[in-house]
Amino acid sequence: MLATRHLTLVGGRWHLRVAASFTAWRPSRKQRYTAAATPAPVVDNEEKGKERKVGLSLAQEAKGGLIDLQPPRGTRDFLPEDLRVRQWLFGEFEAVARLFGFEQFETPVLESEALFTRKAGDEITQQLYNFEDKGGRRVALRPELTPSLARLVLAQAGRAALPLKWFTIGQCWRYERTTRGRRREHYQWNMDIVGVPGVGAEAELLAAVCAFLQRVGLGPADVVIKVSSRGVLSAVLARYAIPAAAVGPVAVVVDKMDKLPLAKVEEELAALGVAADAAAGILAATQAASLPELEALLGPGHEAITELRELFALAEAYGIADYLQFDASCIRGLSYYTGVVFEGRDRAGELRAIFGGGRYDALLSTFGGEAQPCAGFGFGDCVIAELLKERDLLPVPAHQVEDLVVAMDEALRPAAIAAAQRLRRAGRRVDLLLEPKKMKWVFKHAERCGAARLVLLAPEEWAAGAVRVKDLATREEVDVLVADLV
Amino acid sequence: MLATRHLTLVGGRWHLRVAASFTAWRPSRKQRYTAAATPAPVVDNEEKGKERKVGLSLAQEAKGGLIDLQPPRGTRDFLPEDLRVRQWLFGEFEAVARLFGFEQFETPVLESEALFTRKAGDEITQQLYNFEDKGGRRVALRPELTPSLARLVLAQAGRAALPLKWFTIGQCWRYERTTRGRRREHYQWNMDIVGVPGVGAEAELLAAVCAFLQRVGLGPADVVIKVSSRGVLSAVLARYAIPAAAVGPVAVVVDKMDKLPLAKVEEELAALGVAADAAAGILAATQAASLPELEALLGPGHEAITELRELFALAEAYGIADYLQFDASCIRGLSYYTGVVFEGRDRAGELRAIFGGGRYDALLSTFGGEAQPCAGFGFGDCVIAELLKERDLLPVPAHQVEDLVVAMDEALRPAAIAAAQRLRRAGRRVDLLLEPKKMKWVFKHAERCGAARLVLLAPEEWAAGAVRVKDLATREEVDVLVADLV
Repeated sequence: MLATRHLTLVGGRWHLRVAASFTAWRPSRKQRYTAAATPAPVVDNEEKGKERKVGLSLAQEAKGGLIDLQPPRGTRDFLPEDLRVRQWLFGEFEAVARLFGFEQFETPVLESEALFTRKAGDEITQQLYNFEDKGGRRVALRPELTPSLARLVLAQAGRAALPLKWFTIGQCWRYERTTRGRRREHYQWNMDIVGVPGVGAEAELLAAVCAFLQRVGLGPADVVIKVSSRGVLSAVLARYAIPAAAVGPVAVVVDKMDKLPLAKVEEELAALGVAADAAAGILAATQAASLPELEALLGPGHEAITELRELFALAEAYGIADYLQFDASCIRGLSYYTGVVFEGRDRAGELRAIFGGGRYDALLSTFGGEAQPCAGFGFGDCVIAELLKERDLLPVPAHQVEDLVVAMDEALRPAAIAAAQRLRRAGRRVDLLLEPKKMKWVFKHAERCGAARLVLLAPEEWAAGAVRVKDLATREEVDVLVADLV
Repeated sequence: MLATRHLTLVGGRWHLRVAASFTAWRPSRKQRYTAAATPAPVVDNEEKGKERKVGLSLAQEAKGGLIDLQPPRGTRDFLPEDLRVRQWLFGEFEAVARLFGFEQFETPVLESEALFTRKAGDEITQQLYNFEDKGGRRVALRPELTPSLARLVLAQAGRAALPLKWFTIGQCWRYERTTRGRRREHYQWNMDIVGVPGVGAEAELLAAVCAFLQRVGLGPADVVIKVSSRGVLSAVLARYAIPAAAVGPVAVVVDKMDKLPLAKVEEELAALGVAADAAAGILAATQAASLPELEALLGPGHEAITELRELFALAEAYGIADYLQFDASCIRGLSYYTGVVFEGRDRAGELRAIFGGGRYDALLSTFGGEAQPCAGFGFGDCVIAELLKERDLLPVPAHQVEDLVVAMDEALRPAAIAAAQRLRRAGRRVDLLLEPKKMKWVFKHAERCGAARLVLLAPEEWAAGAVRVKDLATREEVDVLVADLV
């Protein structure tokens, strides 16, 4: 199958679009390599449990037979064509973070398990990809990036001038016993601001997300950012004299409302000490249709309402208000949020959350350190790729060298090498043919590697100190002296 | 401590050099953040076993106390200043690979254990960071990248047009029970060519390595690439009628010659069925001082000799011959090499190997697939950083925004936001101050974030529709209409 490609102007830049829909990453099944007519394997191992088990047992039973060619279950290989798409996406993440003056950091994919189990109860902790290392230490492949950031900030405490504006892009892992066609790893782009107590931090973070959405061509008609505050839950719990510490665990339960039957949610809330009347109060508050309606429930001038109003006003100044929507049912499933929470969804509501974030002022003190106001978001690589593909906005960057250098005669190999090296030193991307090939193969290969020019070392031209340079777009050929070759 | 910085011309490009030597990555302890006078913590956790244990037990015993602030033993955090250095290095890796027309791929850091235990006996396998996942599968954090490449190539078999020229940069793990002050993770840059049987492949790979060395300022006086061939061992073993399959395991033992007593090496060789006379033959061959001397041992016209001669001739054409040196004692510790092997060392011979590689034509068939000629190298991130630091060649890229936008009055915050957004849309990296701060703090912060300009929103100028723009290098100030602000 050949993908339909066309150029589109998005956010002032030209994008190559492709109309096709296969795996989350691969925008097209089009063969980049033409050696065979059989379709490329879906390298993505998702939803391939059965096929893979055959592979595994083959490899295990027939010792010396073919190894399992799939990566571990729930993980992905990135072939060059897949990696180019991912790098385009990560490049946009990074570009936006830098436009906002954020600095990049990185922590290990492996962390002490304790970093994630301190704040118990989250779904993310229940699915921890944890194990005991050979030294008997409990470790885990990180399920998210925020606890590592918090650790790093605490390790820097008193040395780093606040506010910190930091970002990272890293792989996160989870282990689910049940197969539900979901991956065990994904990448996440996180941006965090440490040291700013006001909602100016949340507004800046939301502006970064919206800058990304605009750059990739997703407008407010495509994506809605639902915004609410954990302060709403706090206010309701306070009214029923439930300790503030319960907000996190209660939020985790309330967040499951659209997945679980109401009775189950009420049962879990009861287990947290939330009586039926308080539960009803919470449910009413999370169903408020507007800020005024919520204000009527919480009482006038409540801090959470004030903050949300301020946030929406700032959003106007940022020019991102059209993306935002107050939604009292936006809770988020992580227990550590303390203030504003938000999540991005496709407008149609067909996909899972695209990104989520909020304020988590208590995380550092939960970790035993000095409290610091913190806000941030996590933006995964999978749902956005699905949405971009669906909207025909995922580019198909091609492999592209500038020169393909070919010795037409083995005696000219040293000359071809010298020419290639000369071009590379001048900064050109050069594919050097390492073996004798027929010209038919050479032209096919030039197409495969997207070469702009063919640089031929042939006896006749070489006798005159020249190489033949063929422009592959115009088909024009000129003889160029080696000394003039760049 | 302040590092001494100076600019140096290296390979036609200016480098900021810094004279200081602390951790492998951090070229300077200079505080990027000036909030405190206390020295920055060495985030690198290497050789910090004792200190760390205290941290661990604190976190474990005093539940609710401070969490362990260090990453898992043997792993590294990368603070922004560390990550910038690493990204400079990875950027050079990637730039070289692209100049040579290679395509990037990526495989998961977690692989099935079987991928690494097929070819048993290597040191790398003995130190495998492996464990059982919750589903009872044996998995491992990859110790190297080549087996994953081989898996991916086999999965593509028949679909990918050969030769493949692929590269990857990935984190690799090992688990050592004993503490020797060595890390448990490092990054590796791999370049591989699949489908080229001749030494033209090895020459191209060596040229890429040398291009990297030249770009970062390391000449043949700094780095030597020792070159030999597993064919030497094959020839000796064949003479004593030892099966060809023994070459890999024998090589792994012979590679340990400079670490183990001779008697121990001979004992291990005997265990592999290599009798004393054959062992003596091997040792003599690995001590040959030159190609002619080796030829005298192996007999004239031996294939390994021919290949090495051809490789050295190609190196002349590439202009890299000064880096190369025939060294019969260069064996490499991986069992899968079958032909040319090479490793890079600092000329002074003070550091461990900087990189290593060679030909591994049998790996794909070991994995049960169709054999393909393969050659490649792995280039770690640690030893090269040590060497560059020692040679004063490690740059210190600074955090650098273009504009720092400041509202001098809270009423002007929306205007400041709009100005920042305008500048960002024009592609400028903008740090927006999110809270009221004193001007003294603002100037200090402008220095910290390397701002080129200060964009001030002040009531008087704003009344005239203008913002004040201060060039922080020249100290010049001009009032600019918002509409003209880019």
